Amino acid sequence: MRGLATKRLDTLDEAIIAAGLKDGATISFHHHLRNGDRVLNAVLDRLARAGLRGLHLSATSLFPVHAPLVEHIRNGVVDRISTSYISGPVGEAISQGLLPTPVRLTTHGGRARAIESDEAPIDVAFVAACAADEMGNLSGRTGRAPCGTLGYPMVDVEHAAKVVAVTDTLVPYPLCPIDIAQDKVDYVVKIDAIGDPGGIVSGATRPAADPQSLAIAANTAAVISASGLLVDGFAFQTGAGGISLATAEAVGREMAARGVTGSFACGGITGFHVDMLEAGLFRSLLDVQCFDLKAVASFAHNPNHMAMSAAMYAGPHVGGAVVDRLSAVVLGAAEVDLDFNVNVTTRSGGGIIGGSGGHADAAQGASLTLVTTRLTAAGWAKIVPKVTTLTTPGSSVDVVVTEAGVAVNPRRVDLIERFKSTDLRILSIEDIAQDARRLASKPTPDRPVGPIVAVSQYRDGSIIDEIRATAPP
Amino acid sequence: MRGLATKRLDTLDEAIIAAGLKDGATISFHHHLRNGDRVLNAVLDRLARAGLRGLHLSATSLFPVHAPLVEHIRNGVVDRISTSYISGPVGEAISQGLLPTPVRLTTHGGRARAIESDEAPIDVAFVAACAADEMGNLSGRTGRAPCGTLGYPMVDVEHAAKVVAVTDTLVPYPLCPIDIAQDKVDYVVKIDAIGDPGGIVSGATRPAADPQSLAIAANTAAVISASGLLVDGFAFQTGAGGISLATAEAVGREMAARGVTGSFACGGITGFHVDMLEAGLFRSLLDVQCFDLKAVASFAHNPNHMAMSAAMYAGPHVGGAVVDRLSAVVLGAAEVDLDFNVNVTTRSGGGIIGGSGGHADAAQGASLTLVTTRLTAAGWAKIVPKVTTLTTPGSSVDVVVTEAGVAVNPRRVDLIERFKSTDLRILSIEDIAQDARRLASKPTPDRPVGPIVAVSQYRDGSIIDEIRATAPP
Repeated sequence: MRGLATKRLDTLDEAIIAAGLKDGATISFHHHLRNGDRVLNAVLDRLARAGLRGLHLSATSLFPVHAPLVEHIRNGVVDRISTSYISGPVGEAISQGLLPTPVRLTTHGGRARAIESDEAPIDVAFVAACAADEMGNLSGRTGRAPCGTLGYPMVDVEHAAKVVAVTDTLVPYPLCPIDIAQDKVDYVVKIDAIGDPGGIVSGATRPAADPQSLAIAANTAAVISASGLLVDGFAFQTGAGGISLATAEAVGREMAARGVTGSFACGGITGFHVDMLEAGLFRSLLDVQCFDLKAVASFAHNPNHMAMSAAMYAGPHVGGAVVDRLSAVVLGAAEVDLDFNVNVTTRSGGGIIGGSGGHADAAQGASLTLVTTRLTAAGWAKIVPKVTTLTTPGSSVDVVVTEAGVAVNPRRVDLIERFKSTDLRILSIEDIAQDARRLASKPTPDRPVGPIVAVSQYRDGSIIDEIRATAPP
Repeated sequence: MRGLATKRLDTLDEAIIAAGLKDGATISFHHHLRNGDRVLNAVLDRLARAGLRGLHLSATSLFPVHAPLVEHIRNGVVDRISTSYISGPVGEAISQGLLPTPVRLTTHGGRARAIESDEAPIDVAFVAACAADEMGNLSGRTGRAPCGTLGYPMVDVEHAAKVVAVTDTLVPYPLCPIDIAQDKVDYVVKIDAIGDPGGIVSGATRPAADPQSLAIAANTAAVISASGLLVDGFAFQTGAGGISLATAEAVGREMAARGVTGSFACGGITGFHVDMLEAGLFRSLLDVQCFDLKAVASFAHNPNHMAMSAAMYAGPHVGGAVVDRLSAVVLGAAEVDLDFNVNVTTRSGGGIIGGSGGHADAAQGASLTLVTTRLTAAGWAKIVPKVTTLTTPGSSVDVVVTEAGVAVNPRRVDLIERFKSTDLRILSIEDIAQDARRLASKPTPDRPVGPIVAVSQYRDGSIIDEIRATAPP
């Protein structure tokens, strides 16, 4: 009797050996488990103990939970990082110059492009799988801490030299339904827990309710309403923040009133988007990552709630990604400047607090790109002469919406003309910047001048800005 | 207003130019539309008119409907062919030496291996899509002639330099649900009809009812019953032929009687397999290609009826494919020889009438490989001293089942021992061959001695036999 094939290994250590990991290798991780992720820390701990050095960490995003990475950088286990987003202690440490080489801050679509074009090859991709069978079929729908779609590792598993799936829930073969198929996976390792369910998804995503946010949301919805785009087939992306959701709520009311059926909502998906799908406001959801449990449940059961890979979502190299079909996208900002450039990467005055994620991708793709921002935050002006860090070029930002009014990019003469006959409060970006400066209690800080600690890489691969250390290393 | 992205082109001619097709290029096609396919002929017609020459045709299978290919070979439009199966006029013409280079006859899994390892690169993959949107999301579930899963092109679209989707049913963006995603597709062309529904799927697949077939089926089921494998988790593949289905029916009865729940049935899937799924005899179906409309409908609606790519199904390079988890597979034969070698590629005495498809893949993967055959067909013995063409080596064939009795491969001492206590009619393969020779009215022909017209390539890439011309070219 021939033995049954299996890809299961007993420990991460065995997988590290089987995958042939060597000093200097590139290892990749995804962030569907967000601030509840335990897989990146567990793997790096074993790599450090195995004595590996000089690794290149390619992670779709890094969160506060990944604080132990600081020690691995200090010890030389990791000396290069590529990622689309960093928040928490890792960002702080890098901002102070801990990493010997500048972090490459990509966009979600740009990361997919770099991987698929072999510009950024991956030696071993580690996939946190909510459930798996021993042949490597993976699911994000079931298990102890379901996270929904697996849009980011879908790219990595197709291109990595080796793929290690890490799960806490092994199911009998074959797992069903399959989100990532066994022919893309080399090894399967079971650990005690891949994540902390409390950190993986926010309990509930809610629209903002404070007057300032509601004013911004109302202005944003009014711009969309007046744009001519709010017709059957409307395609929409918003973030999961309070202003975005309040905007979506207002847009949804307008769609219902006009009897408009949208084609899709996309991006990270929340229960709020699920409600819009179920209310018939959109025909489908295209979901690269679920942001809450309602979205996870919807993805598991509703065939109109579809997964998409990061390449399909935002790749600038696929001849037309989902973002290229967006009618409108509503994006946030840490800073906006007089050229409509947006910074979502650093604080004013420096210090990494985020990164593009899909910001620059959706901005370039959408027919109408709206950036919402309060005039000030914590005493700082958010509309500034020049952004501290360029994340998304102003050439792909059409409208900036604040509680004080709306500024239209002068390049969009069509919109300026169209909005003349509305009661939108249209201001120049300079006027809005002046309002912000007037309201601010602190002066806008200068750009830091320390050594370069990171570069801002646009979706096409070009370096569009550098991030400098906030304090000497 | 930025224009909406689209991958749609108006004609195949535009797609040929856009894809950069040149003399000598490799073009690929899949056979989900089987003998109803109109896409391969339509594309080759345009390529011929465009004056292209020396093309390499990589097709998962070729059917009688592809007869116009003979003319394209004669005219030098196509001068190389790689495929896993050929029936009809193309096989006849090749057998007579029409093609200037030997056809490479692969297995389904071996073809996937060659493509994924860059041994067999594809310049342009043409995908017949039952429905598509203008960004290249493709479905096999809907449209005018649904074919079900798209397991074969799933491999091609990931590796071809360019992918052209050809459809007769364009739907609004985004198509839903998606079987092949837009980031894998470069161009979308709409033509009048991609296929003739009557030829795509057989109306109904039925178990055989004649006494000889029923005897073989009963013997096959009895071998499986006695094998020790018919326990919970049993995994099964059968073909869509009458004997296979009669065997499946008998095995299903035994499973129900024993209260056994199988893990999966796989391969090409028929309504018969769907019935077994719905009756709870199997937990899931893994489907590389639907063989009838009932399977198509089941795939469209039942999440336990899952698509799989040719690589996942049968790839020898993926560290464990679905075939490697098969408990038992029931396969057919044109000839079987005294070493348990099987020929499903040519007639006795030569002449290409088929090819491995997944035959050699499943045979090597399964724990128990059964080959069923009548003793004779049309007066010829089917158990012969040496097969005319080696498709599947006897080393991966465990049991040969005929209406006269059962021969167990001497390598399987475990089975021989186990079957001693049963009332199976166990014979030596020599005894069965003698029975066949006695029944045959015609002498077994010699292997042809003409020039080599094709090679039989095993799943690992090794050439295990050559096929020679049946008549001088």
